[in-house]
Amino acid sequence: MSARVLLPWTDIEVPEGIEAAFYDGLGAPPPDLDAVEFYVLPYDRGPEPPKLIKELPSLRVVQSLSAGVETLVPLLPGGVRLANGRGLHDLSVAEHALALIHAAQRDLPRWFTQQTRGEWVREHTRSLADSRVLLVGYGSIGQAIERQLLAAEAVVTRVASRARPGDAVHSVAELPGLLPAADIVVLVLPDTPATRGLLGAPELAALPDDALVVNVGRGTAVRTEALLAETASGRLRAALDVTDPEPLPSDHPLWTTPGVVITPHIAGGSASFYPRAKKLAAEQLRRYVKGEELLNLVER
Amino acid sequence: MSARVLLPWTDIEVPEGIEAAFYDGLGAPPPDLDAVEFYVLPYDRGPEPPKLIKELPSLRVVQSLSAGVETLVPLLPGGVRLANGRGLHDLSVAEHALALIHAAQRDLPRWFTQQTRGEWVREHTRSLADSRVLLVGYGSIGQAIERQLLAAEAVVTRVASRARPGDAVHSVAELPGLLPAADIVVLVLPDTPATRGLLGAPELAALPDDALVVNVGRGTAVRTEALLAETASGRLRAALDVTDPEPLPSDHPLWTTPGVVITPHIAGGSASFYPRAKKLAAEQLRRYVKGEELLNLVER
Ligand SMILES: NC(=O)c1ccc[n+]([C@@H]2O[C@H](COP(=O)([O-])OP(=O)(O)OC[C@H]3O[C@@H](n4cnc5c(N)ncnc54)[C@H](OP(=O)(O)O)[C@@H]3O)[C@@H](O)[C@H]2O)c1
Ligand SMILES: NC(=O)c1ccc[n+]([C@@H]2O[C@H](COP(=O)([O-])OP(=O)(O)OC[C@H]3O[C@@H](n4cnc5c(N)ncnc54)[C@H](OP(=O)(O)O)[C@@H]3O)[C@@H](O)[C@H]2O)c1
Repeated sequence: MSARVLLPWTDIEVPEGIEAAFYDGLGAPPPDLDAVEFYVLPYDRGPEPPKLIKELPSLRVVQSLSAGVETLVPLLPGGVRLANGRGLHDLSVAEHALALIHAAQRDLPRWFTQQTRGEWVREHTRSLADSRVLLVGYGSIGQAIERQLLAAEAVVTRVASRARPGDAVHSVAELPGLLPAADIVVLVLPDTPATRGLLGAPELAALPDDALVVNVGRGTAVRTEALLAETASGRLRAALDVTDPEPLPSDHPLWTTPGVVITPHIAGGSASFYPRAKKLAAEQLRRYVKGEELLNLVER
Repeated sequence: MSARVLLPWTDIEVPEGIEAAFYDGLGAPPPDLDAVEFYVLPYDRGPEPPKLIKELPSLRVVQSLSAGVETLVPLLPGGVRLANGRGLHDLSVAEHALALIHAAQRDLPRWFTQQTRGEWVREHTRSLADSRVLLVGYGSIGQAIERQLLAAEAVVTRVASRARPGDAVHSVAELPGLLPAADIVVLVLPDTPATRGLLGAPELAALPDDALVVNVGRGTAVRTEALLAETASGRLRAALDVTDPEPLPSDHPLWTTPGVVITPHIAGGSASFYPRAKKLAAEQLRRYVKGEELLNLVER
């Protein structure tokens, strides 16, 4: 019996030496799982696909298509390698970050509401150009966001966990001194003990009036109650793809606070992800069959 | 009596040799207009400010803050020079074009509607990255749009009135052959006899299914009835800052066609415009007083 790979697509080429089986996380898994050595986890399909891991006795590699794999690690038997989807979502998340920023700066919710009423009423808006953007998280996605911000002639200040003076990256410890000069703060951070509550009441209070808080990383980086207080008063604005809790309950006051724009954690899931994900999976399979080192391996 | 300049702001510095008077197009003009030699037209204040031109017997220069000055030219007495606002709006219009494109590609109207209902329902969207964008109009604003599109990793094809092969700019005569390969068409053209109706029924029919038509130039470049037919059927989508007619009547069917996003001609009016406009006005006054050549003079 030849080795098998479990794939969420039927349209990628599989190298000789391994046999493709299809599982997209929606239908039932294929019947014979004993020979599955390589499992490309369906993206963004909830808790079912990871549960299959323990049904795969020959498993050697799990390829996640997500950048964040915190929740997968505890599910993996010893000896099974884990590769993540670092880079696959960069453009998708970055362009959604830009979409949120533009929506907030250029008042898109207002125009869309006017549109439903057939109202041609004009007013000048804020802009992104010239805005001072504090980019907190300067990893794979943060750097993609920066390229788009610079093209829009925003002024970017970079923050990561550690300072890298050669790259003009500030340490997160410098945040208190940087917040008062930020028109827009963009958070694109993983969920870790160190990032939880990074923007709480004191940090939000340090922002200038009318500043915009954007979060496309993980909802836990912002203290929701503190953000709610500062937005409900009209002092700050927010544009969030991720929230805490998530999903945001339908009666949560954040939904209806003026100056708050919310999308339901959809930054990573857009058309540009698929070709990149398929390319990575095909390359990983090629390497696996040849015995070459895999990309994106996660240390654990 | 010293020469006067009529300015829409009180906070710019005026060189020695000329005296500032304030008129923003909202309140009444100042009383003594006889000595006004230089008139900086208030931006985006409707038909009143241009009417003042004929009340200014000493007028030598009109500085418009708009890129398009078609309607001003006939109002100018012989010998009065006209300078336009070319470049002042580039970033403002470009970022609004991006805002419209992102809104359409990333389904922002859908998420904002869900937000009003407290609905956390997720779905993958189109993206801008990898999209083939046909940029029709490669002038001052078109080039600013291109920089932002390229940062988002869209694939751009340039079109202008004449081909410039060295810059990979296609002539508008090649449009029929280019339209079938465009996921997104962005129009950023002046209103001229040659641009009117540039995208009519045959051109729209040449676009692939689901293509997005974006217009931030002048509404007349698109045949509204033809666009309405193609969007109402669900075959094409549109994101428009300018329309024909304008303002769009409140009962116009374009307002409510699914897949159509409309903003009321506000692309040029955002915060980043003001510092640039003030800088230009100050520089022009400096040149005027010194007898140096003015910038942005319009031939007529
Ligand atoms: N909304 C969505 O749909 C979506 C989609 C994909 C990913 N995400 C989220 O986005 C996150 C970032 O992704 P990525 O690919 O850019 O990750 P990455 O390449 O690992 O970069 C993470 C960045 O965060 C910084 N960082 C980590 N801990 C920090 C702290 N305590 N204070 C300040 N900065 C800290 C890192 O600093 P150093 O440079 O100093 O290491 C690095 O710059 C993911 O972890 C995921 O949670 C969201
Ligand atoms: N929505 C708003 O709020 C807003 C604000 C500002 C401006 N605008 C509009 O945007 C327009 C463009 O501004 P701009 O500063 O970029 O002007 P610009 O620098 O003069 O550029 C105009 C571009 O349009 C091209 N063009 C002219 N006629 C054409 C035709 N028949 N077919 C194809 N291309 C043609 C020109 O081609 P060549 O390069 O071959 O000359 C040039 O590339 C303005 O005229 C104004 O109407 C709108």
